[in-house]
Amino acid sequence: MATQVISKLFRPAVFTQLAALRLRGKVAAAAAGTRHLSSDPPPEKVSRYPVPYRTDLPVDIVELMEEVETKGGFLPNVFKVLSHRPAEFRAFFAYYNELMNKETGGLTKADRELIVVATSIHNKCLYCVVAHSALHRIYSKKPTLSDQVVVNYENAELGPRERAMLDFAMAVCRCDTITEQHFQALEEVGFDREDAWDIAAIAAFFAMSNRLAHLTDMRPNLEFYNMGRLPRDKSKDK
Amino acid sequence: MATQVISKLFRPAVFTQLAALRLRGKVAAAAAGTRHLSSDPPPEKVSRYPVPYRTDLPVDIVELMEEVETKGGFLPNVFKVLSHRPAEFRAFFAYYNELMNKETGGLTKADRELIVVATSIHNKCLYCVVAHSALHRIYSKKPTLSDQVVVNYENAELGPRERAMLDFAMAVCRCDTITEQHFQALEEVGFDREDAWDIAAIAAFFAMSNRLAHLTDMRPNLEFYNMGRLPRDKSKDK
Amino acid sequence: MATQVISKLFRPAVFTQLAALRLRGKVAAAAAGTRHLSSDPPPEKVSRYPVPYRTDLPVDIVELMEEVETKGGFLPNVFKVLSHRPAEFRAFFAYYNELMNKETGGLTKADRELIVVATSIHNKCLYCVVAHSALHRIYSKKPTLSDQVVVNYENAELGPRERAMLDFAMAVCRCDTITEQHFQALEEVGFDREDAWDIAAIAAFFAMSNRLAHLTDMRPNLEFYNMGRLPRDKSKDK
Amino acid sequence: MATQVISKLFRPAVFTQLAALRLRGKVAAAAAGTRHLSSDPPPEKVSRYPVPYRTDLPVDIVELMEEVETKGGFLPNVFKVLSHRPAEFRAFFAYYNELMNKETGGLTKADRELIVVATSIHNKCLYCVVAHSALHRIYSKKPTLSDQVVVNYENAELGPRERAMLDFAMAVCRCDTITEQHFQALEEVGFDREDAWDIAAIAAFFAMSNRLAHLTDMRPNLEFYNMGRLPRDKSKDK
Amino acid sequence: MATQVISKLFRPAVFTQLAALRLRGKVAAAAAGTRHLSSDPPPEKVSRYPVPYRTDLPVDIVELMEEVETKGGFLPNVFKVLSHRPAEFRAFFAYYNELMNKETGGLTKADRELIVVATSIHNKCLYCVVAHSALHRIYSKKPTLSDQVVVNYENAELGPRERAMLDFAMAVCRCDTITEQHFQALEEVGFDREDAWDIAAIAAFFAMSNRLAHLTDMRPNLEFYNMGRLPRDKSKDK
Amino acid sequence: MATQVISKLFRPAVFTQLAALRLRGKVAAAAAGTRHLSSDPPPEKVSRYPVPYRTDLPVDIVELMEEVETKGGFLPNVFKVLSHRPAEFRAFFAYYNELMNKETGGLTKADRELIVVATSIHNKCLYCVVAHSALHRIYSKKPTLSDQVVVNYENAELGPRERAMLDFAMAVCRCDTITEQHFQALEEVGFDREDAWDIAAIAAFFAMSNRLAHLTDMRPNLEFYNMGRLPRDKSKDK
Repeated sequence: MATQVISKLFRPAVFTQLAALRLRGKVAAAAAGTRHLSSDPPPEKVSRYPVPYRTDLPVDIVELMEEVETKGGFLPNVFKVLSHRPAEFRAFFAYYNELMNKETGGLTKADRELIVVATSIHNKCLYCVVAHSALHRIYSKKPTLSDQVVVNYENAELGPRERAMLDFAMAVCRCDTITEQHFQALEEVGFDREDAWDIAAIAAFFAMSNRLAHLTDMRPNLEFYNMGRLPRDKSKDK
Repeated sequence: MATQVISKLFRPAVFTQLAALRLRGKVAAAAAGTRHLSSDPPPEKVSRYPVPYRTDLPVDIVELMEEVETKGGFLPNVFKVLSHRPAEFRAFFAYYNELMNKETGGLTKADRELIVVATSIHNKCLYCVVAHSALHRIYSKKPTLSDQVVVNYENAELGPRERAMLDFAMAVCRCDTITEQHFQALEEVGFDREDAWDIAAIAAFFAMSNRLAHLTDMRPNLEFYNMGRLPRDKSKDK
Repeated sequence: MATQVISKLFRPAVFTQLAALRLRGKVAAAAAGTRHLSSDPPPEKVSRYPVPYRTDLPVDIVELMEEVETKGGFLPNVFKVLSHRPAEFRAFFAYYNELMNKETGGLTKADRELIVVATSIHNKCLYCVVAHSALHRIYSKKPTLSDQVVVNYENAELGPRERAMLDFAMAVCRCDTITEQHFQALEEVGFDREDAWDIAAIAAFFAMSNRLAHLTDMRPNLEFYNMGRLPRDKSKDK
Repeated sequence: MATQVISKLFRPAVFTQLAALRLRGKVAAAAAGTRHLSSDPPPEKVSRYPVPYRTDLPVDIVELMEEVETKGGFLPNVFKVLSHRPAEFRAFFAYYNELMNKETGGLTKADRELIVVATSIHNKCLYCVVAHSALHRIYSKKPTLSDQVVVNYENAELGPRERAMLDFAMAVCRCDTITEQHFQALEEVGFDREDAWDIAAIAAFFAMSNRLAHLTDMRPNLEFYNMGRLPRDKSKDK
Repeated sequence: MATQVISKLFRPAVFTQLAALRLRGKVAAAAAGTRHLSSDPPPEKVSRYPVPYRTDLPVDIVELMEEVETKGGFLPNVFKVLSHRPAEFRAFFAYYNELMNKETGGLTKADRELIVVATSIHNKCLYCVVAHSALHRIYSKKPTLSDQVVVNYENAELGPRERAMLDFAMAVCRCDTITEQHFQALEEVGFDREDAWDIAAIAAFFAMSNRLAHLTDMRPNLEFYNMGRLPRDKSKDK
Repeated sequence: MATQVISKLFRPAVFTQLAALRLRGKVAAAAAGTRHLSSDPPPEKVSRYPVPYRTDLPVDIVELMEEVETKGGFLPNVFKVLSHRPAEFRAFFAYYNELMNKETGGLTKADRELIVVATSIHNKCLYCVVAHSALHRIYSKKPTLSDQVVVNYENAELGPRERAMLDFAMAVCRCDTITEQHFQALEEVGFDREDAWDIAAIAAFFAMSNRLAHLTDMRPNLEFYNMGRLPRDKSKDK
């Protein structure tokens, strides 16, 4: 019972949104350009730990995977890797959903992904950098900004708002002692204390995620590397 | 609905266990020795963010708080501080419960608390160090070991098993790239790969928790500072 | 006079090679896929320092630029940025040419580019990471390896030879004291002392280049971001 | 042909200047005080790599070495060590000459040497610290300032101009992201943007040189250790 | 002779003061609560080096030990450990006495202990953190402040005066270059230059002590862990 | 009384030894070559704190200063600077004398000075590096080794014994946790545990001294910079 409820809990936001994306053709187009790559090489090793067969997984997790796969075009490896521990899988994605798919507050979806990119490169997390750079490219329609942030957010083409947002996210990422000055710097560019919580909670959640990715040697799907890099070819979009 | 289910999800383990402790008189005795301290000072400021009145909180969260308070003798401030965001509260404690109250695997409860202490001091997290040092003292019945680990786990009175466990936890805490050598070092003292996941997941979860505590300036309850330091006075235990 | 000679000095290798690439259609194809991007935005700002008009530059430098542009499809911004100081421009490219276009020794062109990528990300150098990741993709025909090395060369898909090569390059990059043990680690995977010099000299040269890029806030050409990411469309290749 | 031209290119500045120094008796005096030291020990090992016999070197390199040796009293080991790779030797010294012997801009020769000393000690480069401390003593006529900078430039006897110059050089040396604030700090003490380029280019070039010295275990000539420490004995100068 | 004089030199302050404490019942009460703990385990190993029998020690050192033990209720292990080198023992405690038991200047005894706690945790020194946290609790009557400083003095419950004092102590502890700005920050909260010397000298002395404790693996007496944590039970105090 | 005894305590070793040096003409020769330098500039500022007039100092301190000055040719500034606090002066030099002028154990006087040089440069202490480099040159008769250690002890011309000695001293200097492995590395080159204590105690004492020098901005006497650099001119020695 619990598992079904958990599954419901985070389903609306993440996947409705992926579905929405698909209707607008973005992920589909991106996948169209790269999908054949994933069939060329032998099946990728995605984790240092065993990845369960779907027939061995609880039904709520399988249903969730199928929904994600159907809507997004492929199943991000984080779902496969974490399904090794179903109970932790549910808690992880419930939390993820709260933070990344929240519909309120001052952060755009692109902002949230940029926070993930900036903090995950600090933590040298291959999976999160590659996957969330892709999501940032799609949400922001800026095909090079995440690459710039990966190298050095301090000289990336960011406005003062985004710069202040990442400065705060990095303070949390480094586990600095947070002081009133941090909040004031955010307020100067229009972020209130609830936005600060959002920024920090994302940085904190990915502090955990990055470490789980290191534990499992989680590998990004090949699809992520190129997703969102090219302007959509309109003829393919029909 | 969902909230009730989540609440159920993590209730059995954390709180049944606290109740069990109480039956054996440990927490009760510890609280007995220190409870009056908490009434002396003016009400402590526990968070930089507002702490909701219970009447404003969802019923599942209130029920959980009351259960914890009744069984443990006081409500740890992390419950108050995180209730500022009920949805995140539920995800946080569901995850916490999976990791810290798991009944299987090679880690004892004292082991888990020691991992929290060692990684949280690296992150300079006041709440987690003070609260989980208290829990370690109670579970381990070793009243000085957590203080030693707080200062320097490298020369604390640890056996090779605990030392290897903390070496690995610290590698995760620092976000080192995890390699086969890390797993081999664990295997030499009897930890298998599932134990490695447990150790790493706790270190990863508290990488998040420590950062949330810094965000909110979460303050430990006064009760935690002294809990488990003194041998129980048997006359009080009746 | 001197300038003409210098110009001759480094022309054969760099540009003959770029020409060769073009004959095999690689750069041309890559450029074909991305060139229109560079016409969309307003003219990019490429340097914090003024970039001279070509009519104001010495003839040897202009000739070199035109040759590069004709053969490669676009002029990499490093040529524009460094032409602010023609004499230093000549010395820089003469040295670059010696190290990167050398026809002897145990390093492939892809190896050299990988060294640049791995050391330049350590130095957070946007220009060098983006430009040399592109060159690595083209030379290696591995479209994702440079992205992996950008995030974390320690868990990138490298064989022992490449791993040892980058370990040594990083030791030089960090300015570690180099010892016999470094050379032995290289010898174990087949690199002799002349290869060690090549690896170290590239790492050392880009220690300089990265810092010049930081000085000038050198921006990568948009073409570089996507170059070599997609398999060539054979129909375009004819 | 090319080699002759390169040789001409950098000859005027470095060596004319060394000659000029000699006419004014400085280097000669310094060498007079120390030269006999170099004959006492067995021939010094100057490099981890073979140093070619002059008869095996290209004529332009030999001519250059002889000119330097004649004018300066001894051949600095960097010429011997880098002659292992004649083509790189030419590029290195051409670049060196552009940066260190430039006749224009706001930096004195002593300023340039001080930049080299401050950045090279950060990089723990024995050759560059010892050799360029000697050159600084000669150019500045300050026999103890370079020793102070070697220990700690932050409390050396520097005026605000030199302090700002070294602050910027160290930012480049550490590969910090350079911002407008760096340029403003320089402007406050009278350095314009072209001076900033000069400072940064020297710091960047020695970022390379220091690493080549570590690669080769380049040892300073004994003459450098004491050169310029003592006031010239006028009776010897005639 | 010399030894007797040295012994006299530092006896008045340290031990008179411990005696005074005892009269007011503080240490006695603290020891009363914990003394039986030290008899439970087998005799503690207190040093990696041999601890001499008292019969083998010079009489001045034995007399000092007996005085300390009589007045304080137990002999702190630092006396045992350092008696391995009697001459250094005398110099160490003479210096200690000058710094920690000085009767003049703007630092309270609690201030001095807090400096020791804050700098010793930076140096991961088990003995000094545990012993001086105990002394801080007794002198300050604040039972939790030292625990807070051990975790993170930046968010401990400190006023601006104590915060500035620890900021300066930490600058000395880290061996930062001390500048006029450091003194100005102290003056803003009322510390003059003689107070600055006191703060710095304590931080410097414990830079030495912490390292001696690491050398010898000096272990704190069990009594220190709990001393001063609980409010005195008045009935026991009679 | 006490002060006289303390003064006697450390007088025999330090100053007898300086006197012995003088008889052999070393310091005298060194001073002869440089003394006139100190009269050229205006009186040096030696401390950020006031330096007392000798007439205001306790007689035991004045006598000590005069003895040092007479025998060594000049008074090292550390005596002037620390006399600002006579009681701490006595404790400091008593301790210094025990460690640096000890007549037993496996460390030569040159070894001790080399430990001071290597650790003091890590701490960026101008006074200690310059003064103890001079003393090392005199004791070791190696005029360039201390300069090499100042830049980088890892590639200085050290044998395995000296290298292991400095490795251990640096571990203490950095406040590493000392383990059995450290002692084993020392034993492999012939140092026993008492030698280990000597090495560590010197490193620890200068951890304190370096910080006091930073506090006071202690400046080295000009005489130290050149002392021991040149072979003695035998004609002057008569």
